[in-house]
Amino acid sequence: MPSDFDLVLPTEIDVREVGMRDGLQLEAPVPLEGKLAMLDALVATGVRRIEVTSFVSPKAVPALADADRVAAELSRWPDVHWSALVANPRGAVRAVDAGIAELELVVSASDGHSRANAGRSTAEALAGVGEVADLAHGAGGSLEVVVATAWDCPFDGRTPIARTVDVCRAAVTAGADALCLGDTIGTTTPARVVRLLDAVRRACPGTPVAVHFHDTRGTGQANALAAVQAGVTQLDASVGGLGGCPFAPGASGNIATEELVYWLEESDVRTGIDLDALLAAARVTEEAVGHPLPSSLYRAGGRSVPRTALGAPA
Amino acid sequence: MPSDFDLVLPTEIDVREVGMRDGLQLEAPVPLEGKLAMLDALVATGVRRIEVTSFVSPKAVPALADADRVAAELSRWPDVHWSALVANPRGAVRAVDAGIAELELVVSASDGHSRANAGRSTAEALAGVGEVADLAHGAGGSLEVVVATAWDCPFDGRTPIARTVDVCRAAVTAGADALCLGDTIGTTTPARVVRLLDAVRRACPGTPVAVHFHDTRGTGQANALAAVQAGVTQLDASVGGLGGCPFAPGASGNIATEELVYWLEESDVRTGIDLDALLAAARVTEEAVGHPLPSSLYRAGGRSVPRTALGAPA
Repeated sequence: MPSDFDLVLPTEIDVREVGMRDGLQLEAPVPLEGKLAMLDALVATGVRRIEVTSFVSPKAVPALADADRVAAELSRWPDVHWSALVANPRGAVRAVDAGIAELELVVSASDGHSRANAGRSTAEALAGVGEVADLAHGAGGSLEVVVATAWDCPFDGRTPIARTVDVCRAAVTAGADALCLGDTIGTTTPARVVRLLDAVRRACPGTPVAVHFHDTRGTGQANALAAVQAGVTQLDASVGGLGGCPFAPGASGNIATEELVYWLEESDVRTGIDLDALLAAARVTEEAVGHPLPSSLYRAGGRSVPRTALGAPA
Repeated sequence: MPSDFDLVLPTEIDVREVGMRDGLQLEAPVPLEGKLAMLDALVATGVRRIEVTSFVSPKAVPALADADRVAAELSRWPDVHWSALVANPRGAVRAVDAGIAELELVVSASDGHSRANAGRSTAEALAGVGEVADLAHGAGGSLEVVVATAWDCPFDGRTPIARTVDVCRAAVTAGADALCLGDTIGTTTPARVVRLLDAVRRACPGTPVAVHFHDTRGTGQANALAAVQAGVTQLDASVGGLGGCPFAPGASGNIATEELVYWLEESDVRTGIDLDALLAAARVTEEAVGHPLPSSLYRAGGRSVPRTALGAPA
């Protein structure tokens, strides 16, 4: 057994909480008051980047039909960097009008998912990047392109690395300021994570690359570890692992924010997020959605051992 | 973002299936016929190391009171390396008499857990290692000492690295052929995994060191990834993540064998275990125990994408 391995991790990781958007989008609509309670609890954790909603068709995503009303409330938490997902220039206009200029635009790397999810090919989706980027920049904001099905597609199978790389390069050329690679169906694994990150980074030098993992197959935190080792410092996560149903086949929640924060902080990586406050936010979230959350750490009741008893890291 | 990171993994990993022992020990007793059905299904996966039972007090662990009857059936699967857990020399005699000479002896690194679990201090438990080793060796077998609470104890808090290292060194000196570090309450994290492995390896050069993780806080597979990178090639896992209750606070199953096999195989690490057969074994296990299993991959129904559609790794 070799004994020269060292786990090299950054000193800080920037977690983006996506429970309000990816977590809630398939839930029964949560009333505004429930969302504000969630936001109050989330802001209290110390997290400073929150994807708060999406400006998409209310018919397609009724759970986020209140995007404008939610956006109107955000000034009460001035220290948070808010972002919103959009699907096209129309959504970008709505977001900017609502006061959110940090935009995420989804482009599926596979045509099958692109057509099913957005009614257009990957090329057609890419054609909209420039206009959305201009809208974001014109409002003093920025644009991150979220590359969905970056590893696998439920319709087309594996996405070739070259295809995902081409989509990333085209997005940056068209004006995207940042990229986020999405494991939409939760199938990727550590070696594939590292391989794709390396390829995207070489193709788009200087562009920040974030990752967005789902824990559908229990490998989300292992993928996160691989990504962090590979130098990624921006990760999406969802309070309580919201986004999947633990009792149904096909459960597909995002990686749980509290599990990510737990192992990062215990590995001496700072997130700025307080674990106890995060567990409190998970409780508020559970009340808001009205069903148990999938997060193992949340279900286990946090630590079995009080933090004080554990003492200094060993 | 640095771009020179490479994920270095071994070409093969040796998975030990512990669902029959750690998985079943807190369950309502499964009839012999149910256990044989589980074994049939598990052997069909290709796994070649199975911890099949423990020879401990039937009063303490009624679910494994049939250890002798189970052992008597094992000759029907001649290609499997069977092992059994014992708590003391008396159990070792029973195991050897039943035809199992590959023994695992638990020694808790923390006194609090040792007293609660086995009614003796760590030092008292270590005093029994030599006799158990002699019994195993006399029967042509070997002894692995499983160091429980290697990272944290539910009673004593963090276990100092020096203490776990001392226990490992004493066990090897007393005759243990191998070590296994147990994250008994599922609290460890990647950086701590690597740190302890490094210290144990330096203290016990030449002794194989396995790891035994619980997925209580959703970090089990990330810990496994860290351990594998650090050179560990032997890992315990439990079919379906059996061992915890997904619906109760404190759920604490082992890492799920199918999740481990999934990400290893997809990362080009061979396990000799067939994923589809493993999911079939999880179904048999679920029927045997009569309640849903915690494994996310099993709940998700395996891959959303047929293997054929996914094609070659990309």
